[in-house]
Amino acid sequence: MLVVKVGGAEGVDLGTVCADMAALAAEGQPWVLVHGGSHETNQVAEKLGHPPEFVTSVSGYTSRKTDRRTIEIFEMVYCGKRNKALVERLQALGVNAVGLSGLDGRLLEGPRKKALKVVHPETGKRLVLRDTYTGTVKKVNASLLRLLLDAGYWPVLTPPAISEEHEAINVDGDRAAARVAAALGAETLVILSDVPGVLRDFPREESLVERLPRHRIEEAQERWAQGRMRIKLLGAKEALEGGVARVILGDSRGESPVRAALSGKGTVIE
Amino acid sequence: MLVVKVGGAEGVDLGTVCADMAALAAEGQPWVLVHGGSHETNQVAEKLGHPPEFVTSVSGYTSRKTDRRTIEIFEMVYCGKRNKALVERLQALGVNAVGLSGLDGRLLEGPRKKALKVVHPETGKRLVLRDTYTGTVKKVNASLLRLLLDAGYWPVLTPPAISEEHEAINVDGDRAAARVAAALGAETLVILSDVPGVLRDFPREESLVERLPRHRIEEAQERWAQGRMRIKLLGAKEALEGGVARVILGDSRGESPVRAALSGKGTVIE
Repeated sequence: MLVVKVGGAEGVDLGTVCADMAALAAEGQPWVLVHGGSHETNQVAEKLGHPPEFVTSVSGYTSRKTDRRTIEIFEMVYCGKRNKALVERLQALGVNAVGLSGLDGRLLEGPRKKALKVVHPETGKRLVLRDTYTGTVKKVNASLLRLLLDAGYWPVLTPPAISEEHEAINVDGDRAAARVAAALGAETLVILSDVPGVLRDFPREESLVERLPRHRIEEAQERWAQGRMRIKLLGAKEALEGGVARVILGDSRGESPVRAALSGKGTVIE
Repeated sequence: MLVVKVGGAEGVDLGTVCADMAALAAEGQPWVLVHGGSHETNQVAEKLGHPPEFVTSVSGYTSRKTDRRTIEIFEMVYCGKRNKALVERLQALGVNAVGLSGLDGRLLEGPRKKALKVVHPETGKRLVLRDTYTGTVKKVNASLLRLLLDAGYWPVLTPPAISEEHEAINVDGDRAAARVAAALGAETLVILSDVPGVLRDFPREESLVERLPRHRIEEAQERWAQGRMRIKLLGAKEALEGGVARVILGDSRGESPVRAALSGKGTVIE
């Protein structure tokens, strides 16, 4: 079993990812594709007059400030535009894809964070945000994914997740993919983004960390990882702890990004 | 088996529909819920700077003029906002709902109309529209719906459909629901909208046609039906021809709209 996460940053080429996924499917490789949609969500939110805001947690992770209106816009882009574009493209490549969100069949479930401790971007003061629709995936409905896979369908999965109180909640896509990989007993989790992997000297791409033993993940988070890479490493750690044998942080920008990552290009964490 | 279609007109109360569907699910009644999203699509399209346009075919049916950008906005509202709102609400009512579009697993498939013969709204002249993404459902993947139903999930289904060339296409939701009902061998198809049913003297609600024998559908289309009701009657005809025993055109505005329709309130066509 293979789980691939493709981000939603600007310029991520879904065409090359889909081509790779279709070739893998044709070879009989079972997979689940998890995707994001952050950049387009920002654009649509601006146009709809509800511009995006971001907050940084006290532990240093940046995330989208998510009120109820933001969740609706998030769903429009992630579950509507992006998920269906991927399904359409995969169908055209002969893959019988089924697009699902974490709400559907409670595929991704976890507690909602009712109070989010954040740091004010300018003053550095600590604040508590309430009424945010964010959380963390704790449970994956692996049986629904297996039901579909066994019947010849290829799941394309996106946040939001569902809270224990049945609300749509924004969850980190990389960490959600890690949970999915662990729940399915996947051998490999590939997380693609618009950088080559962990860089020792960001943004110098030649400073790529090619191999990272799992016991050095935290060190890599502290010493090298910038921005979103820190949370990808957290996802990698959670996947490995959940029994996934190998996590590859790969580059989404190449001609054959999934293939390249599977052949060891990127930061391979074991 | 029961198939319920709920429209996307302004003021349609999804809460009462979901409550009814949840009660039916609790009684062990298998169902598929098909929904629209037209009103919200119009609003979002306006805000995104791509205002909706409508065309009337030479046979007198009005439909959305659908270019590629319109399909994307359509997917955002139907598959994103509306479908996930229904799933979230049903989950909160204890129904393990799974939201799907016609693209997913090729649930709704049919030919794309590459040329659409329409009547110019002002001059009445006949025109041929090309490059529209519209079509008609000819095939339903009933096996995927049954797979989910048999495993304890409740499908919530929305257009678009997928064309034979694997493109997302706008299809009429009422007629799609009719195809689904026929493919599943449903006994009953309920089509809810913001009127009490077929009115002999539109918009006088007291002029409701309570019983309509199937051989008089065409007569009702010609003599009484206004606007969207004509296409609902076409859907009803197609469902009955496909083996559905009973079609009820009911009112979505009551307290218990599905229950009321099932008890015979509305236009019952047999």
